[in-house]
Amino acid sequence: MTIREIYKNSEQFLNKEVKLGGWIRSIRGSKHFGFLVLHDGTFFKPIQVVYEEKLANFQEISKMNVGAAVIVEGILVPTPQAKQPFEIQATSVTLEGASAPDYPLQKKRHSLEYLRTISHLRPRTNTFQAVFRIRSMAAYAIHQFFQERGFVYVHTPLITASDCEGAGEMFQVTTLDLNNIPKDKEEKVDFTQDFFGKPTNLTVSGQLNAETFAQAFRNTYTFGPTFRAENSNTARHAAEFWMIEPEMAFADLKDDMEVAEAMLKYVISYVMENAPEEMDFLNQFVDKGLKDRLNHVLNAEFGHVTYTEAVEILEKHNDEFEYKVSWGTDLQTEHERYLTEEVFKRPVFVTDYPKEIKAFYMKLNQDGKTVAAMDCLVPGIGEIIGGSQREDDYDLLRKRMEEVGLDEENYQFYLDLRKYGSTHHSGFGLGFERCVMYLTGISNIRDAIPFPRTVNNCEL
Amino acid sequence: MTIREIYKNSEQFLNKEVKLGGWIRSIRGSKHFGFLVLHDGTFFKPIQVVYEEKLANFQEISKMNVGAAVIVEGILVPTPQAKQPFEIQATSVTLEGASAPDYPLQKKRHSLEYLRTISHLRPRTNTFQAVFRIRSMAAYAIHQFFQERGFVYVHTPLITASDCEGAGEMFQVTTLDLNNIPKDKEEKVDFTQDFFGKPTNLTVSGQLNAETFAQAFRNTYTFGPTFRAENSNTARHAAEFWMIEPEMAFADLKDDMEVAEAMLKYVISYVMENAPEEMDFLNQFVDKGLKDRLNHVLNAEFGHVTYTEAVEILEKHNDEFEYKVSWGTDLQTEHERYLTEEVFKRPVFVTDYPKEIKAFYMKLNQDGKTVAAMDCLVPGIGEIIGGSQREDDYDLLRKRMEEVGLDEENYQFYLDLRKYGSTHHSGFGLGFERCVMYLTGISNIRDAIPFPRTVNNCEL
Repeated sequence: MTIREIYKNSEQFLNKEVKLGGWIRSIRGSKHFGFLVLHDGTFFKPIQVVYEEKLANFQEISKMNVGAAVIVEGILVPTPQAKQPFEIQATSVTLEGASAPDYPLQKKRHSLEYLRTISHLRPRTNTFQAVFRIRSMAAYAIHQFFQERGFVYVHTPLITASDCEGAGEMFQVTTLDLNNIPKDKEEKVDFTQDFFGKPTNLTVSGQLNAETFAQAFRNTYTFGPTFRAENSNTARHAAEFWMIEPEMAFADLKDDMEVAEAMLKYVISYVMENAPEEMDFLNQFVDKGLKDRLNHVLNAEFGHVTYTEAVEILEKHNDEFEYKVSWGTDLQTEHERYLTEEVFKRPVFVTDYPKEIKAFYMKLNQDGKTVAAMDCLVPGIGEIIGGSQREDDYDLLRKRMEEVGLDEENYQFYLDLRKYGSTHHSGFGLGFERCVMYLTGISNIRDAIPFPRTVNNCEL
Repeated sequence: MTIREIYKNSEQFLNKEVKLGGWIRSIRGSKHFGFLVLHDGTFFKPIQVVYEEKLANFQEISKMNVGAAVIVEGILVPTPQAKQPFEIQATSVTLEGASAPDYPLQKKRHSLEYLRTISHLRPRTNTFQAVFRIRSMAAYAIHQFFQERGFVYVHTPLITASDCEGAGEMFQVTTLDLNNIPKDKEEKVDFTQDFFGKPTNLTVSGQLNAETFAQAFRNTYTFGPTFRAENSNTARHAAEFWMIEPEMAFADLKDDMEVAEAMLKYVISYVMENAPEEMDFLNQFVDKGLKDRLNHVLNAEFGHVTYTEAVEILEKHNDEFEYKVSWGTDLQTEHERYLTEEVFKRPVFVTDYPKEIKAFYMKLNQDGKTVAAMDCLVPGIGEIIGGSQREDDYDLLRKRMEEVGLDEENYQFYLDLRKYGSTHHSGFGLGFERCVMYLTGISNIRDAIPFPRTVNNCEL
């Protein structure tokens, strides 16, 4: 039996015997009776348990510490006068596992910074109960969204010998003895002795691999970890994070944006429906505008603006920006937020960026200078999704690869897709942690992922 | 519109105009008309398209190659005399992307070995359409199984500074310049200059991290990539593979086995229900006993036997085995298969193994020499799941860690779980590729994962 079951079907349990395992959130006793608040991790709300001196181990119970695991049996009784709808009148409280007196999560508020130092215990706090349950639900909602639409989930590889973006700092993966690196005749690392016989690293994106599946299954998506060895210690960067990357054959940029918008709305509505207690808590204690903002996104039709139009709008406000905007510059978060929060007052897709500031695989537009790219900007965060129609023309793609200095040999498989039954096709990427931050109002990525990895930080 | 939609609701499309994008699987023309078989990746079966000389580009169509992408418009007409239920009488066939004449997937059977050399194209073949769609469905079924039961999905970290099993060959992760490794005063690698400031590697299991979540959410599971740098070139080993690892507080070994059995049955039944065409194909061309075997598992109650009893049974047949069995030895695949195929003739859980052949975190039984472990053996494959009740006693766990030579300092977080509200708890691991092999009858792990990584092999 779980606390979730009881809350969801309380009618059926009222005035009956219940039995629950859980952890003591707080406890206060007097001479003849006491209260303990029991949480079992299955539901956001705990249940109050009343224990009385008639219990054989009354003294023992009174001395239990916060954090102790207990098994409680008793009667679930309604409490119409109280804040909570019911409580348990215990017939027995058995200690399952004591909690040492130095338990770090005493009943008081702890800073998120402090809780980061105890990542094995912080999931027991209200904030992280909410964040990590929502993370779990959001992940599931994303799978449900794509699977209901017949998308094939593809596990793209983590260890790779190529670099999707043609840039980015990557982690190397090796089994060579770092204390004694084997060298070849030219005194370079002898990778023939490495596990894969060549240099390998951790992927920064599953997109190119996913495209091979889109050309076979039409609609496909990846959802897996990606890595950046970026030396930036910000609230938005993690070295290891999860990405969702759908790829769709026979889909143009418009189709791409429709799927992105539908997906975001699906996830928001799934979480709001399935985690109302968590959302209420976050709205009250973490981010007061959270629910309004999400409801607004849910009900808004997303805006559309080209990069060129967006720049024209932004240029008029250049005096308000730290970084001045002009055609050809990349948009910074301040510009993105201005567009979505001040100009459109709702989520907006910015499309058709200059090819120079976008990746080589994006489809060149007729004008020869922009690409069929889209970024989805949302209030409160800026860019949350980036995508594009992919270049499907063999010659144009080769030319572009040459321009940006990619070694064609490493991308033969990718060119093959344009040689054997090429289709117009599109896709996008959603950083899952950014999505979780958006859904929860959490402002530091370290609090949106269970065990964050950042520069100089790899605990547990 | 997709071929799946047409097959699933053919009544509603019959004698109406349809429009499909897809790829030519085969094409044969005569002077006045021709047939092409169109596949669009959304459904296992293709659709036959009839094109006649009245089409303006009749000559062009006739010259199209296998693998070409086309957009077909026409009328869906019933074909009661033919093997297929309907076909499309084309009003137009437009070339979307040609296929070069050297397209490797001509209409003939290719060996799985050959197809491995073109992992970007093999998803277009019948076998891999079946295997990878089933893989996708199985992954989703696993999420559905756990989410419906309120389990919280936790993303455990990939890059880690510890080693779960206290053994195993691991991949190192580093940003150091391998051509110029920085050394400290003692001429050892200076890891303070590495990204995380210490040696890190790729995880072999998310279990220990997942346990921290079980002690907070009660029921939790991981589903993510894990890595082994094992130098073994077999049909069952990959360097990168996906694992499902549930962890449950207030669950003993019996509960653990119940969840494992229910999960396996859930996945099998989900796949058989949702991919009947794929299963028929695999049953016919890949593994003739497949469907019978899975149906048998679905309807059997799994057997239970202790390791000690199993050894007694097996010892009587030692003359049939390459490796002789006696109490204390680990069971080999030949023994496992004998137990499940010959003795029990159904899946069986073997429990209570000698502690010496199991991991340090497994709960010591009262006898002091066995642990509350379970392996689930299934016909045709042997071990598919391994799990245990976890040691929840602080002192016993510390003692065991000392015995096997683990450095306590690295496991402080794990010991903390036994210090602050310890509960009896259990979990197991399911290798996802092994599960996919079991569901599809595919016998080489390289064909069960989209982009396999094995010794000296890291393509795409």
